[in-house]
Amino acid sequence: MGRPSEDELIETYLAPLAGPGAFGLRDDAALLSLSPGLDLVLTTDLLVAGVHFFPDDPPGLVARKALRVNLSDLAGKGAKPAGFLLGLALPDDWTVDWLAAFTEGLGEDSALYACPLLGGDTSRTPGPLTILITALGHVPVGGIVPRGGAAEGDKIYVSGTIGDAALGLALRKGNAPWAAAMTPAALRFLEERYLLPQPRLALSDTLRHFAHSAMDISDGLAGDLRKMLCLTGMTAEVAVADVPLSEAAREALALEPGLVEPILCGGDDYEILCAVPPDRAEAFEAAARGAGVPVHVIGTAVAGTEPPIFKDALGRRLGFDRPSFQHF
Amino acid sequence: MGRPSEDELIETYLAPLAGPGAFGLRDDAALLSLSPGLDLVLTTDLLVAGVHFFPDDPPGLVARKALRVNLSDLAGKGAKPAGFLLGLALPDDWTVDWLAAFTEGLGEDSALYACPLLGGDTSRTPGPLTILITALGHVPVGGIVPRGGAAEGDKIYVSGTIGDAALGLALRKGNAPWAAAMTPAALRFLEERYLLPQPRLALSDTLRHFAHSAMDISDGLAGDLRKMLCLTGMTAEVAVADVPLSEAAREALALEPGLVEPILCGGDDYEILCAVPPDRAEAFEAAARGAGVPVHVIGTAVAGTEPPIFKDALGRRLGFDRPSFQHF
Repeated sequence: MGRPSEDELIETYLAPLAGPGAFGLRDDAALLSLSPGLDLVLTTDLLVAGVHFFPDDPPGLVARKALRVNLSDLAGKGAKPAGFLLGLALPDDWTVDWLAAFTEGLGEDSALYACPLLGGDTSRTPGPLTILITALGHVPVGGIVPRGGAAEGDKIYVSGTIGDAALGLALRKGNAPWAAAMTPAALRFLEERYLLPQPRLALSDTLRHFAHSAMDISDGLAGDLRKMLCLTGMTAEVAVADVPLSEAAREALALEPGLVEPILCGGDDYEILCAVPPDRAEAFEAAARGAGVPVHVIGTAVAGTEPPIFKDALGRRLGFDRPSFQHF
Repeated sequence: MGRPSEDELIETYLAPLAGPGAFGLRDDAALLSLSPGLDLVLTTDLLVAGVHFFPDDPPGLVARKALRVNLSDLAGKGAKPAGFLLGLALPDDWTVDWLAAFTEGLGEDSALYACPLLGGDTSRTPGPLTILITALGHVPVGGIVPRGGAAEGDKIYVSGTIGDAALGLALRKGNAPWAAAMTPAALRFLEERYLLPQPRLALSDTLRHFAHSAMDISDGLAGDLRKMLCLTGMTAEVAVADVPLSEAAREALALEPGLVEPILCGGDDYEILCAVPPDRAEAFEAAARGAGVPVHVIGTAVAGTEPPIFKDALGRRLGFDRPSFQHF
């Protein structure tokens, strides 16, 4: 089958995902009317084949992850999705099958999260497939939850479980000798946690109502905790035993204690990290339960300029070679 | 000099460009509060080294063009800039000097057009340098000028001059035997028209007040005219003699009559194409003059499903191999 022209590609594969204000992707720009009383929240994530995902990852999952990492950013700001823009640079060997599967996955999540395609741009590239999604969300005016807002005494919470995706990535890389002793179900769980993040949008309202500060964990808990706390001159001490781990991660860690570093520093968790004042902690926990999102306290914010420290079960301070993911 | 980490890169080179709502680029998302009564207009353009620009183009000019092509889209919708997001994938051989010059140029135009950096994402790429800018603009509610809106009898206008950038590109490619007979000043003019578009933001208000439909010309006049008119079942007949050409383009065309195709189909003009009802034509022209932007009538919209036709000085219909730029 011949490949479509750029216009045909947009018309056939992308226009069906277009929402109101996208003009059927036949205009140069999109329109977004926010209801009065709402602020716009904007976030962008760049995904490059071979850097952020494997070129042979299923295209539908690549698409869904590309959208979801942006939705996770919105969740961390207490925002609800309003739509997204897609920049797509296709390598010379792109196929119609790849694109059809990519846009099918994108369409599924666009519908699931009520986040329509508003516009974008496509191009060829002599390099690897490159995806840039810009997600737009909204919060009530003044309601955005900042990254910098933690105060002394705030309880530090994380949602879900930490480290699964980093272990899933090690599995995908074939860099996991510990895997041989694990059950297929546990391995599948970890791989799926890497391939398909679950943006915690269900927690948006709860964060807006109760949290002083929040962010999604994308570059590793250790580094992201430092980033969040240092903005207000805070630090924390975290007992690794208090960091919520999945059954599968627990199993892997028992087999290979050195996995504590990728678990705490590996990133791709797309869970929420937030700071909640102690007098609101109980109400926050109840609201999170009501939203169906498990949350756990991992520490307390204290004044200090040192990076947060992590201690093992014997109270020994852990040292990390690379506490946070960096591209350069 | 060693290269900075990703965080240092953002802090040193990009944070100085950040506007209010960008949280100093230390958050996952940006905030944009639009005044009541305004709609948001969004546009995205992807630029890949070796596809959209030459890898050895001056980095400051690459940055300014990347922003300006987006601002040109906003101008074509009658919008004013509000800010932009930057996605930047840096190849493995990026240098601090390149980045410093790139962000210096970006900062100049960000200030010139009152369009602050709101956020973005950076990454490495094993491929070529890739830039994706998303520009945000605003129009009074309901004021966006659509691409599809031309009615029978509307006068079709273009701003400025057409074809200069396509000739400048031929010069950059060393694919211009006609250049030998031209003055250095004319060649410099054409090259500059390719390297640094002039977004017609001065025409935004005029378009909102008088035009039925508008767009910026980025993929060539012939193809873009078709795209604009076909949305409302219109077509047009254009005498090439009525298409405004610069002195330099006129000189080149006299030397090589075959240049009529790149002039009309080559793209990168970033001029405005619009349709204005005849009873508002005089007021439109006066307003454009007041805004300091030259505009010329090139034809009249008539009902029809055929692509617009272009006729030469002898009334012969021109055929084009490729009326519009396509990436695939």
